[in-house]
Amino acid sequence: MSKYSLGLDYGSESVRALLVDIETGEEKGVAVKPYPHCVIYDKLPNTDIELPADFALQHAQDYLDCGIYVISEAIKEVSSDDIIGIAVDFTACTVIPVKKDGTPLMFLDEFKDNPYAWVKLWKHHAAQPEADKVNELANKRDEKFLKYYSGIVSSEWMLPKCWETANHAKDVYDATDYFLDAGDWIVQQLTGEFTRNACAAGYKGLWSEELGSPSKDFLKALDPKIENLNDKLITNIIPAGKTAGKISAEFAKRTGLKEETVVSAATIDAHSGVPGMGVSKPNVMSLIMGTSTCHLVMSDDLHLYDGYAGVVKDGILPGFYGYESGQSAVGDIFAWFVKTFMPDSKSPFKEITPKAALLPPGGNGLVALDWHNGNRSVLMNADLSGLILGLNINTKPEEIYRALVESTAFGTKVIIDSYIDNGVEINEVVACGGLTGEDFLMQIYADILQLPIKIAATTQAVALGSAIFAAVAAGKDNGGYDDIEIAVEKMTKPFIKTFEPNLDNKKSYDNLFKVYKKTHDFFGKENPELMKSLKNLK
Amino acid sequence: MSKYSLGLDYGSESVRALLVDIETGEEKGVAVKPYPHCVIYDKLPNTDIELPADFALQHAQDYLDCGIYVISEAIKEVSSDDIIGIAVDFTACTVIPVKKDGTPLMFLDEFKDNPYAWVKLWKHHAAQPEADKVNELANKRDEKFLKYYSGIVSSEWMLPKCWETANHAKDVYDATDYFLDAGDWIVQQLTGEFTRNACAAGYKGLWSEELGSPSKDFLKALDPKIENLNDKLITNIIPAGKTAGKISAEFAKRTGLKEETVVSAATIDAHSGVPGMGVSKPNVMSLIMGTSTCHLVMSDDLHLYDGYAGVVKDGILPGFYGYESGQSAVGDIFAWFVKTFMPDSKSPFKEITPKAALLPPGGNGLVALDWHNGNRSVLMNADLSGLILGLNINTKPEEIYRALVESTAFGTKVIIDSYIDNGVEINEVVACGGLTGEDFLMQIYADILQLPIKIAATTQAVALGSAIFAAVAAGKDNGGYDDIEIAVEKMTKPFIKTFEPNLDNKKSYDNLFKVYKKTHDFFGKENPELMKSLKNLK
Repeated sequence: MSKYSLGLDYGSESVRALLVDIETGEEKGVAVKPYPHCVIYDKLPNTDIELPADFALQHAQDYLDCGIYVISEAIKEVSSDDIIGIAVDFTACTVIPVKKDGTPLMFLDEFKDNPYAWVKLWKHHAAQPEADKVNELANKRDEKFLKYYSGIVSSEWMLPKCWETANHAKDVYDATDYFLDAGDWIVQQLTGEFTRNACAAGYKGLWSEELGSPSKDFLKALDPKIENLNDKLITNIIPAGKTAGKISAEFAKRTGLKEETVVSAATIDAHSGVPGMGVSKPNVMSLIMGTSTCHLVMSDDLHLYDGYAGVVKDGILPGFYGYESGQSAVGDIFAWFVKTFMPDSKSPFKEITPKAALLPPGGNGLVALDWHNGNRSVLMNADLSGLILGLNINTKPEEIYRALVESTAFGTKVIIDSYIDNGVEINEVVACGGLTGEDFLMQIYADILQLPIKIAATTQAVALGSAIFAAVAAGKDNGGYDDIEIAVEKMTKPFIKTFEPNLDNKKSYDNLFKVYKKTHDFFGKENPELMKSLKNLK
Repeated sequence: MSKYSLGLDYGSESVRALLVDIETGEEKGVAVKPYPHCVIYDKLPNTDIELPADFALQHAQDYLDCGIYVISEAIKEVSSDDIIGIAVDFTACTVIPVKKDGTPLMFLDEFKDNPYAWVKLWKHHAAQPEADKVNELANKRDEKFLKYYSGIVSSEWMLPKCWETANHAKDVYDATDYFLDAGDWIVQQLTGEFTRNACAAGYKGLWSEELGSPSKDFLKALDPKIENLNDKLITNIIPAGKTAGKISAEFAKRTGLKEETVVSAATIDAHSGVPGMGVSKPNVMSLIMGTSTCHLVMSDDLHLYDGYAGVVKDGILPGFYGYESGQSAVGDIFAWFVKTFMPDSKSPFKEITPKAALLPPGGNGLVALDWHNGNRSVLMNADLSGLILGLNINTKPEEIYRALVESTAFGTKVIIDSYIDNGVEINEVVACGGLTGEDFLMQIYADILQLPIKIAATTQAVALGSAIFAAVAAGKDNGGYDDIEIAVEKMTKPFIKTFEPNLDNKKSYDNLFKVYKKTHDFFGKENPELMKSLKNLK
């Protein structure tokens, strides 16, 4: 009798459920549902209440309605008795303020018209002033937690977002019993149990096993208003693959799952892609490539240096230090290119790619910087911006497109080099995500990295990763696995394709990379105020 | 009885004749004719003979045929008895190898299939290797002539072009009796007299009154093949406004001009625009704005420093040191923009300009470098290339367009600042040329320069300048003028419009200029090898 586990993958615009045979990895059911309110940038839905700049909210009801729908759809073909576990991954740091019983403040009449009571999506950037002050004070006080984050706290993270609410909506802050990562809220809804997932707590919550959370003393020094913030955070911190609770009677009814089905602790969506691709060993660089790219690598050792976004013990898989880096725009840069240069084309990528593929490295003498949405690694600076150089009066759009693709590969090279230069070995590069279907692009990455790149078999690596965590949380006693390495081996398929570096292009790319790196350092390290001054001009 | 003078203006793609009433400046006749062979880049016409890279040739017969046509057309309405003089301006350094009787080598059966026997247009850039060696040796020997040219000899100039011919076509070099500036060849054709115009000899021929031509010793050290080059250059050097000869019987017949009509020495086209705009005083910056921009200013004093293209005594008007600077692409950058970003638009500038005009300075945080065709001043480096920075995933084409327009104004500001910083006073800025009709663009120039800019009344300032030189060459005795200042006053009209700087934009542009200048210095001064390496990649 086959057993199944369910991965529930909450992305920025939709949720996906994937039901997998835990013995073969076969996909037994899948369903996707876009959130009706998607991302809310301008006004609270059905109101005239305008949102401040840099806001990006979501509706908690969307998560529930869509989640229940996709679960019900994905499990239709099998008996709920054979589904042994479920795990949730979620964008992070997506924050939801709730009452003691798990009710989101935005569901209460008192707060439904207050934007600060709504869910702040990961890319809500309005807490930059708070992040700046956190960084200033933490650096001044030499707070130990900084060493795990290259010395920089992002405005996307938990502390700045909570403090922002305290600054702008003290009533919401005071009425909030818990600020939850949205993934943990889904787990609480499914099980009734409050847990905090170690992955989000580590990468986005400034928590570590060694140091715990930032001290009350530090919080008070930031602002007496938030000296009690730790009381509003869940202390039961659990990694994905461990049981957070079991499906409640209510949610069994609403989803079709069996009551008491094991629910794993949550994890961050990108991080779930690592086991989902088939990686369970250290020193493998996993690229999760889409509108942005996430770079994840595990190591037996802790290497502290500046350049990554965060390092968390057991942050990706138990037993390893998990390192996270990122490029804030990759597919988004290509989307910008076609919107800007080919507004009238119906299939712009089909048109431009063959032309760009015929060009030599550099697209006839161009180099670009991939900072159209700032730089997340290794510079950690949202004020940086994109650049193209080498333009002449004959430069063609396909040349610019090729240079932009190459720029994102150079950005990945800088990240990988920074790991290697600081002692984190990289033996292999693997990739998943929407962009890995583009041979033209992946070959450029292999050529620029001068490393083979293996492409994951599944297009749903993130959801599959959650299904793996679900099977491990269920454990051998329930027909699952106790060992994640075995679960990964059983439930994932071999890489389907390897892009080998073309040595003919090495010399050209080495020369282009010299220009990239020198320009990168000039604008990113030596003179960051130049691009910052352009942002402030607006 | 009215008297008239004729300006004959040879541009890159057409020739224009303008007949002017010397008392009122009234335009009495005008004709334009494009050269049938235009610019020859790929193959010699009607042959399979391919041209090497960076070649740009023209056909000498086009100059004659089109010149005769436009003269005949422009003078139709008046009696040839009342036309007192004619003057020629020409692009420079456009070089034509001829026999002792003035016959171009390209007209001879022996050489008609040899590209090196054809006319090398100013923008023929294949002599860069020769220019590099001239610069290296001249700097090593500390040749005095270098001081008039900021220490750099351009590949566009006479010496590199002649040496290139000696290197690649020794038979052509040996058979050449004279290498002529094309303007001087037209004068020779009209009059039978060989003269060399002081303007082209000074700015493009490394000649000065003080030093003469580069020494035989220097030429021999460059290459024994060209030690006799000075014997192939005309030594009768005459400035525009002085008589070079008189219309021959043959050309009287062919053009309809009267035999013995005075012909002025030639001049360079841009330089002729200065009197044509109405400028006869020192310390006025004249901008001749088109596909590229030429910056010309006169001064009572000689200021030697690096940054301009050349300084020539009496080079623009007699009695002053004439300084020349230039931006190698201005209108060409805008043409590139619309070709690249708006390929399907029928009237792209009409579409994009109103959108760009609504934007704030910087077009929402962008800065560009105007080096799409290299930098002629103040860096004198053809290996530099264009750059755009400040891009983000919402950047719109009109924002880029605005930044490109601003970049060309910043380029002009760098040039003007370099004069002022080095002691050449600039009291006034005036402009002529195709771009001066664009209010949006001219207002940006006024705002960025923070100086008023006066716009010339005529759209044919260059041809009018030649007509002025013609009236002065004819002199009072023939009903013309002896004094160029009076001729300018009589024959030009007051500036029609002044763009006043908008103080509201000063702060923004000061900030943007800081970014421009820092980027300019990084890529142009401190690390010129970066962009050079991109050129060499091709």
